[in-house]
Amino acid sequence: MSGRESLAAWVRLSLTDGIGPQTARELLARFGLPEDIVGAGFPALQKCVPEKIAYALSGPAPTAMQEQIERTLAWADGDHNQVLTLADDGYPKALLSIADPPPLLYAKGRVELLSRPALAIVGSRNATVQGMQNAERFAQTLSASGLTVVSGLALGIDAAAHLGALAAHVGDEAGSTIAVTGTGLDLVYPARHHALAHRIAVDGCLISEYPLGTQAMASNFPRRNRLISGLAVGVLVVEAAMQSGSLITARSATEQGRDVFAIPGSIHSPLSKGCHQLIRQGAKLVESAQDILEELRWQHIAAPVQPTAAVPPAHAIDADASLQQLLALAGHDPVSIDQLVERSGLPAADIQAALLTLEMAQRVEMLPGGQYRRLS
Amino acid sequence: MSGRESLAAWVRLSLTDGIGPQTARELLARFGLPEDIVGAGFPALQKCVPEKIAYALSGPAPTAMQEQIERTLAWADGDHNQVLTLADDGYPKALLSIADPPPLLYAKGRVELLSRPALAIVGSRNATVQGMQNAERFAQTLSASGLTVVSGLALGIDAAAHLGALAAHVGDEAGSTIAVTGTGLDLVYPARHHALAHRIAVDGCLISEYPLGTQAMASNFPRRNRLISGLAVGVLVVEAAMQSGSLITARSATEQGRDVFAIPGSIHSPLSKGCHQLIRQGAKLVESAQDILEELRWQHIAAPVQPTAAVPPAHAIDADASLQQLLALAGHDPVSIDQLVERSGLPAADIQAALLTLEMAQRVEMLPGGQYRRLS
Repeated sequence: MSGRESLAAWVRLSLTDGIGPQTARELLARFGLPEDIVGAGFPALQKCVPEKIAYALSGPAPTAMQEQIERTLAWADGDHNQVLTLADDGYPKALLSIADPPPLLYAKGRVELLSRPALAIVGSRNATVQGMQNAERFAQTLSASGLTVVSGLALGIDAAAHLGALAAHVGDEAGSTIAVTGTGLDLVYPARHHALAHRIAVDGCLISEYPLGTQAMASNFPRRNRLISGLAVGVLVVEAAMQSGSLITARSATEQGRDVFAIPGSIHSPLSKGCHQLIRQGAKLVESAQDILEELRWQHIAAPVQPTAAVPPAHAIDADASLQQLLALAGHDPVSIDQLVERSGLPAADIQAALLTLEMAQRVEMLPGGQYRRLS
Repeated sequence: MSGRESLAAWVRLSLTDGIGPQTARELLARFGLPEDIVGAGFPALQKCVPEKIAYALSGPAPTAMQEQIERTLAWADGDHNQVLTLADDGYPKALLSIADPPPLLYAKGRVELLSRPALAIVGSRNATVQGMQNAERFAQTLSASGLTVVSGLALGIDAAAHLGALAAHVGDEAGSTIAVTGTGLDLVYPARHHALAHRIAVDGCLISEYPLGTQAMASNFPRRNRLISGLAVGVLVVEAAMQSGSLITARSATEQGRDVFAIPGSIHSPLSKGCHQLIRQGAKLVESAQDILEELRWQHIAAPVQPTAAVPPAHAIDADASLQQLLALAGHDPVSIDQLVERSGLPAADIQAALLTLEMAQRVEMLPGGQYRRLS
C-alpha cells in the first residue's frame, strides 16, 4: 500500500462518525494500522465497536467522504502543509503522554517545532492593555530562552503571546510559536487574525485536530485546550475571568501533569479572579518569565530534539530497555496505570506514553475500565 | 504587700537593665512574684543571673528608677490607663502562647478588648491609595464580624486599618481596634497620629511593652511586631515592599502558629512584591475579608471571652484537668516542648501557654536549652 493510500485510510478513520481518539486507539490497538482496520471487514469490526461504526468502516467510503479525503490529501500536498498520524515520526511526542491524543493532526508551517520543549500561554479574549503587554513580554523572554510558545490564536492574550514569541530572537533564528486552532486549518478564526495566522505559518506552526472545513463551534474549543496544555511542559495563565476557557486549559494541564503558572493582579479586576483561584488551588504565582524558567530549572537548549517514530518497529521495541522493563513489570495479568506507577516508580505520564507505544505495536491491549494486558 | 507595692516591684523588674522577657520569666519561675525576686537578696539572685543584674535587683532602687516607678504608678492611676502584669486577669491570653510574652504591658483604653479574638492588619507606610482603601474595607468588614483589628499605628496601611475597624458597627457597639506601639504610651508616634491615637484610646485600646517616655527607636519596631501577630489569630498583609517590616510581622505570625493572609496586586507594583513572596511561601491569597472569615471558619461571636487570671491559684491548677494531664505527661525528667507536643498531640502554642502557667505557679521550671522539669 502506498503512503498516500495509507494516509487516506488514516483520514477516513478520523472522519468516520462516532470515532474519537479513544475508539481510534482501541481499533488501532486491535487491528494495527488504519488500512488493516478498514480491511478487517464487518464481522471482525462489529466485535469491538457499535454496529453503525463497523458498517461505516466496511466497504468503500461514501462519495462525500471520498471527496473530503481527496481534498485532504490535496491539501497535504500544499507547501508547508502536513497531516501527521500517530504513526509518523513528526507526531508530537508530548501528546503521546496525554490520555486522548488525536489520531490525526493537521499542521501548517514548521512541524519540527512540535518536537521542541514548549510553554503554553493562555488568557482572556477581553484582556486589559496591561494583560496583553504582560503576555507579550513573558512570551518574548520565554521564546528568547528557547521555549516554543503555544497558544490558541484567539483575540487578546493568545494573540499577544504569539506576537511576543515571534518578536524574540533565538540565536540567529526568529522566535517560534505554535497555534492550536479549534477550526479546520484551511479556515482562520477569528477572521481578523488572518495576518497573524499567515505569519505563524511561516515562522511557527499551526495545528488542528479538526477536519478541513470545520467551522468555529463553541463546543470544539474546550476540547482543543487539552492539546495546548498537552504540547507544553507548563501553562501560564495571564488574565482569566472565573469560569473561563483558560481555567479549562489549566485543569487539563494539571490532569496531564504539567505545571500551572498564574500572574496575580488587582483584587478588583474581574480578569485576575481566575488567576487568583488557580494560585489558591496550587498554581505557581509568577511575577516574571524568569520565575517560570527558574521553576522549570530551564537552561537554554539550542539543539532541537530529534524526532523519532511514535510507533517504532518491532526490533526497536525489543531493543528499548525501558519498554521491555515495563512489559516485565506488567506481567500477564490485567494491570492498571496506577499499579504500573507503583511498580516502576515512574510518573503516570511516562507510563501512559510507553503504553501507547506498546499498544500501537500490539504488545499490550487496553481492557475496559482502563486496565492493560500484555499480549506477547 | 499592697497591690501598689506589688505593681512597683513588677515595674522595677521590667525597668532593670539586662532583664528582657526571657530573664524575667526565669526569675519569676525561680523566685515567684517580683516582690519575692527583689527581696531574694544578692547571693540567691547571683546564682541565676549575671552579677550586675543581681546587684541591680538587690537593695533599694536608685533614685532615677524610683522616680520612674512613681511616674508609672501615677500614670496607671490615670483614667483608662492600666499596667498589666503576667499575673493579671486582664493580661492578653493570646500572648501567653508566644515564646517571649512581655512581663509588663502598658495599656490605655478598653483593656477588655485584649481578651477578644483579633486579626492583625499590617502593611507599608508608603501605601498606595488603593492599598489604603483595601485595608480600610477589609478592617471594617472584619470588625463588623466581631474580630478586633490589631495594627501598629503607623502611617499608611496601619492607620487605614485602625480607621476602618473603628468605622464598623458590631451590634450596638462601635467597632474596636488595638494599636501596639513601639514607644512609651505617654508619647504618640508618628506625631500626626495624635487624633487617631486619642480615638483608639476611647473606642479601642493602645498597648506597649516599652516604659513611659521611650522615644521612637528603629530597633524597637521589629520586636514590637511579634506582639501585633501574637495578639491575633492571623495576620493580613495588605501591601508590602520586599525586606519590609510587614514581612517581619508575617514571619512572627508563622513562628507563632498564626495564619498569614496576603492581598495580591500588579506584578509591576513594588508594594505587591512582599505580598507575592508571602503567597509563594504559603500565605493564603485573599481577595476579600470574606475569604479570611471563611478560612478561619469564623462565626460572629457576640460574647466576649471572660478574662481569667494568667497565674491561677494553686487549687485552680490542681483542678485543671488539662494542666494535670500535661504534668503527668511531662514526668520528672527534663522534657522539651517538642516531646510534649508528641506525647500530648496538642499544638506547640497550647503547650507553651500551659507551661508558662505552670512555671508561674512554680510547678515546672525551665532549664537551659529550652527544656522543662516538673517541680512537684
